Amino acid sequence: MAYLNEHFLKLKAGYLFPEIARRVKAFADANPDAAKRIIRCGIGDVTEPLPPVVIAAMHRAVDEMSTREGFHGYGPEQGYEWLRHAIAEHDYRGRGIEVADDEVFVSDGSKCDCGNILDILGAQNRVAITDPVYPVYVDTNVMAGGTGEADASGAYAGLVYLPCTEANGFIAEPPAEHVDVIYLCFPNNPTGAVATRAQLTAWVNYAREHQSLILFDAAYEAYISDPALPRSIYEIPGARECAIEFRSFSKNGGFTGTRCAFIVVPKTLLASTASGERLPLHPLWARRHTTKFNGVSYIVQRGAEALYTAEGKAQIAALISHYMGNASILREAARRVGWRVYGGENAPYIWVSTPAGTTSWEMFDRMLGEANVVITPGSGFGAMGEGWFRISAFNSRVNAEEVARRIAAIAW
Amino acid sequence: MAYLNEHFLKLKAGYLFPEIARRVKAFADANPDAAKRIIRCGIGDVTEPLPPVVIAAMHRAVDEMSTREGFHGYGPEQGYEWLRHAIAEHDYRGRGIEVADDEVFVSDGSKCDCGNILDILGAQNRVAITDPVYPVYVDTNVMAGGTGEADASGAYAGLVYLPCTEANGFIAEPPAEHVDVIYLCFPNNPTGAVATRAQLTAWVNYAREHQSLILFDAAYEAYISDPALPRSIYEIPGARECAIEFRSFSKNGGFTGTRCAFIVVPKTLLASTASGERLPLHPLWARRHTTKFNGVSYIVQRGAEALYTAEGKAQIAALISHYMGNASILREAARRVGWRVYGGENAPYIWVSTPAGTTSWEMFDRMLGEANVVITPGSGFGAMGEGWFRISAFNSRVNAEEVARRIAAIAW
Repeated sequence: MAYLNEHFLKLKAGYLFPEIARRVKAFADANPDAAKRIIRCGIGDVTEPLPPVVIAAMHRAVDEMSTREGFHGYGPEQGYEWLRHAIAEHDYRGRGIEVADDEVFVSDGSKCDCGNILDILGAQNRVAITDPVYPVYVDTNVMAGGTGEADASGAYAGLVYLPCTEANGFIAEPPAEHVDVIYLCFPNNPTGAVATRAQLTAWVNYAREHQSLILFDAAYEAYISDPALPRSIYEIPGARECAIEFRSFSKNGGFTGTRCAFIVVPKTLLASTASGERLPLHPLWARRHTTKFNGVSYIVQRGAEALYTAEGKAQIAALISHYMGNASILREAARRVGWRVYGGENAPYIWVSTPAGTTSWEMFDRMLGEANVVITPGSGFGAMGEGWFRISAFNSRVNAEEVARRIAAIAW
Repeated sequence: MAYLNEHFLKLKAGYLFPEIARRVKAFADANPDAAKRIIRCGIGDVTEPLPPVVIAAMHRAVDEMSTREGFHGYGPEQGYEWLRHAIAEHDYRGRGIEVADDEVFVSDGSKCDCGNILDILGAQNRVAITDPVYPVYVDTNVMAGGTGEADASGAYAGLVYLPCTEANGFIAEPPAEHVDVIYLCFPNNPTGAVATRAQLTAWVNYAREHQSLILFDAAYEAYISDPALPRSIYEIPGARECAIEFRSFSKNGGFTGTRCAFIVVPKTLLASTASGERLPLHPLWARRHTTKFNGVSYIVQRGAEALYTAEGKAQIAALISHYMGNASILREAARRVGWRVYGGENAPYIWVSTPAGTTSWEMFDRMLGEANVVITPGSGFGAMGEGWFRISAFNSRVNAEEVARRIAAIAW
């Protein structure tokens, strides 16, 4: 008798974004005319074409694959050396941060990496997440059996929730209690908050004192324009002893549909056996990655490599500047209504309070029904997100301006 | 204190193919002249260019990604509907096999799928594997905690090993004892054996009687030329109630470096909770796939779709015919030496006995040192593989002929 993993049965409803897609489809089916006006500021998906330097590199790579001499079969599971080198050199060493080429593991997405990392961690870890939070951190812990059941608010027993509120500027402080693993995401999804150097240092100090592991999601680092803000956790002394960093080409190069990301696992990072022996995590992840993954498409890796050329960097900068222009328009529009507005300054997400007495999902339905704009309900990211919603700046300028006009035209 | 997953510490040595790569590199570094002559028949990696129809489709898709209108961001995690439909229609329904479009889940590789499937299965399952076997089945079970320690022969406590020997034609029969989950792979990697309809029927009947789950790896189905042999387990009545099928574009379309595969999870397939309730696995896999995976590159999915056109099918047939021509040359060469030779008729792998008294790894070293040919030692696939080695037919014709000449020239 084959048994299933019963931890899956603890999962609440659908994953947030499929649920949004379902509601949008239901609305569109019922209102075909309004459906044509729908503008999506919900899921954080980029809208602009791939940079020309990526297009050219991928065409070249496709051509290579058409000849015996240029054909590439299985590549190294961890990524080609030229891409790992480009990443380590440009994203880290060129900025004075110590990361070796072979500490970089290329993958097909940060979502995959965030889930898969649990494979190498013990089931007994006490895990902390911020609230609101990217749902994948929570759901993958539930699937792995690291939690109990959810309560009425959707909070799972066994997880430590760190509230991110207006009072703390949406940046959680290290808890008084002990936790073994902590998920941090800066620039934050969904709030757009970015930790200062002092705030991140407090976290690194906590992790070193407690021999905890920080899973640092920096998928949106390209949106940081303030030079005082850290873009990598490895800018903080001691982070190589306590942190894994997750990065992606989705939001800088526009690779959401092209698929390439990476994580950094420093060789100096240790974790414990049940008996207290401290061992490096790097060989475990290397074993996991080579056994359960077969590398990213050669064509896509060549595309990612092109982002590190001078033209590639300039083209990324233009994309970021485009989306941050949208952010500024949307922030201003929301502020003018009188809503309380956060994020959108060093992040592509804007975090906005709902009108008094309106829940996040009610706001979702109003924005969809009245403005024909898809936003993301804050409560979908956790109990502390109730009363908030997220607007994504990933859109065309025309759409961002139209959303601003529609928000202004409605009597909220 | 962050804890690591101690099950990883049970894993023996490196994964087989990295170990082969290490030995080849050591030999090449020590023998730079011989290194130039090395021909690789070890890892099962294709060598011929991608089919022209795939190249054209991927160029078109890259061009689409360069425009706002044609740009594709996040796609459905399960794969685009047009690809799922093409798969279900051409690989199944067109052959009279019932598979719905939404029972197909597109992924970036069978290796990933084989490992990831354990996410939705209970830790208490008693798992059977054939011996010799593709190492990924074993290693991923070890990582997931489904085994005890390995003994001196490399066999893990808790796994049920089903010996595949010359006596049973390298096809294991269902065991007398009860097992919950069974990995089967036909055409087989590494032996090249293919189960008959009667043999597969015995397995399906066993699985239905025991409410067991068959994980059926059909990555090499395109190499079956004998029309009497089943290409999908769903050709066997009752298989929709007991089997998940794994397929890949790696070995038919040459996608080893391009990355696309799929699995079929019938909605009629149930598994048990600890209390004996029977529930469908399809929603669990859908949840796992949408939460821990973000879809295959749009460009790659367009390439895979092109394989289902008439030209695509003809180009696949030409590739298969090329590799099977190699198989025939290599089989004949090995047979002429007097070795016992299996496989290579409906499979791209040839399974060959080592000379008397020679272990598999000794044979690996002799083939590398004397013939400068890389093969795969049979013992790398399990204890029952000792005394055998695998030759892969994935090569150019020139190389296959050269390998045949070198084998003939050595006094074994």
